[in-house]
Amino acid sequence: VVATADALVEEIHFRRDWTGPEDLGWKALAVNVSDILAMGGEPFAALISVALPSATDPGWVEALYQGLAACAEEYDCALVGGDTVGSPERIFLNVALLGTAEPGRVRTRSGARPGDRVCVTGALGDSAAGLALLRAGSHAYPALLDAHRRPRPRRLAARALAAEPAVTAMMDLSDGIASDLRHIVTASGVGARLDAGALPLSTAARAAAADLGADPIEWALRGGEDYELLFTIRPEAVARLPRILAGTGVTATAVGEITAAGYLLVGPDGREEPLAPEAFAHFHA
Amino acid sequence: VVATADALVEEIHFRRDWTGPEDLGWKALAVNVSDILAMGGEPFAALISVALPSATDPGWVEALYQGLAACAEEYDCALVGGDTVGSPERIFLNVALLGTAEPGRVRTRSGARPGDRVCVTGALGDSAAGLALLRAGSHAYPALLDAHRRPRPRRLAARALAAEPAVTAMMDLSDGIASDLRHIVTASGVGARLDAGALPLSTAARAAAADLGADPIEWALRGGEDYELLFTIRPEAVARLPRILAGTGVTATAVGEITAAGYLLVGPDGREEPLAPEAFAHFHA
Repeated sequence: VVATADALVEEIHFRRDWTGPEDLGWKALAVNVSDILAMGGEPFAALISVALPSATDPGWVEALYQGLAACAEEYDCALVGGDTVGSPERIFLNVALLGTAEPGRVRTRSGARPGDRVCVTGALGDSAAGLALLRAGSHAYPALLDAHRRPRPRRLAARALAAEPAVTAMMDLSDGIASDLRHIVTASGVGARLDAGALPLSTAARAAAADLGADPIEWALRGGEDYELLFTIRPEAVARLPRILAGTGVTATAVGEITAAGYLLVGPDGREEPLAPEAFAHFHA
Repeated sequence: VVATADALVEEIHFRRDWTGPEDLGWKALAVNVSDILAMGGEPFAALISVALPSATDPGWVEALYQGLAACAEEYDCALVGGDTVGSPERIFLNVALLGTAEPGRVRTRSGARPGDRVCVTGALGDSAAGLALLRAGSHAYPALLDAHRRPRPRRLAARALAAEPAVTAMMDLSDGIASDLRHIVTASGVGARLDAGALPLSTAARAAAADLGADPIEWALRGGEDYELLFTIRPEAVARLPRILAGTGVTATAVGEITAAGYLLVGPDGREEPLAPEAFAHFHA
């Protein structure tokens, strides 16, 4: 059994005017599904705790549960219980998710070794682009808004990667690769060098960044909420990735390598600088 | 695997001036431990989600985790993860707890049959008495305050009862027997008759009720948070209860019986009235 939990607080993690209740329900469960899948597990049962102000519209709550149920159905897990309580002002939502995992397929953050390649699935920064569009009051680029509101965890890719012995560590990208890769580095007792120029960006994210005067690499590094897979793989297996991921509907991109020590970002100009998990890096602007 | 979750919201479920952080941590985990034990399970892993305003004193948070850890140690489960996030105003605490249960020992709410006796462990109303004392600003009767602040789930009694085939349904008392027995009645498709005069009340609760001008039977019926065990048992096994519970440090009291239909309270005067789960009953005042 593997387990995870994620808490969402109104005004901190979501705003009711930016995210509808059905999308919120979907996302609250999906982010946990993503975490279980990235460990090599399969979700099976969710416990939903929700604290609601007494003035909450019952239709809003019903739509929240519709979103939860839609995600549960999509990922074959059951909503088995939880708790519903009152709250003075804000909505709180906690999802605890249980999954099963075959011991041989469990992937943690601690298996990365120097020489491994750092890879990600899909494109990075779409969710941050969607959030930036919402903040700007724009509803252009529906795919980016959708990436932010309704993330789709990479089930087939996670299964394929968890079955591959050359994959040494895996997690999902929730906070942005600059922060999440640090967890692998710390847990594995290694270093990493990330190549900013190699980060996979969607055409839509590049276009939205141009519209908003924003930096899409910054979105990819620190925007968060992509729910793509971040994994390390033995270098000799990188060439096999297209075969490993065949039929999963997703491709992977090598974006860096595991080193003995240090935590560095290589800019598009080849210059190296410390990779700050939180603060903004400006050299690529 | 059995699982449960319980959410606590500041100002709704606790007040920081009435409950210290260590007691709050203990109680947040204990109420889930109680639920797992009452299903015939044994807790093994807890996920703690906590949302904290930025102004929260770090010492308060540390003490909260000390209380959680103390309860986890007492009941042999591990704090394996969870989530820590920000909150605009209130503290929000969710505990999701996993347990294991041998299939033959799982007890649910749906096994009660007409003729079964309704029984409870320990005394009822001590926690409500403790809360009433706190509300009145009284610190008399430390055992009652302790019952409210630091409930001690009935592990040995739950194990003994779950191993007894004559026990047909079991749950823990969290909301008060007037409300909780209703869950067994509904899930089992039966009725129940509860004998107000048989409810076990502690000497301390009776004395505190006299001091405060309160009704201790009301505390026992609807006060909640006793975390004693509520169970139904075949009538011929009631006489064996002292032997079944030998060595568990707790006794059980028969307080009613399962009927074909209806949900009734028998007053000390023998008069029957509908047993209201929530509203106040006044005939015994």
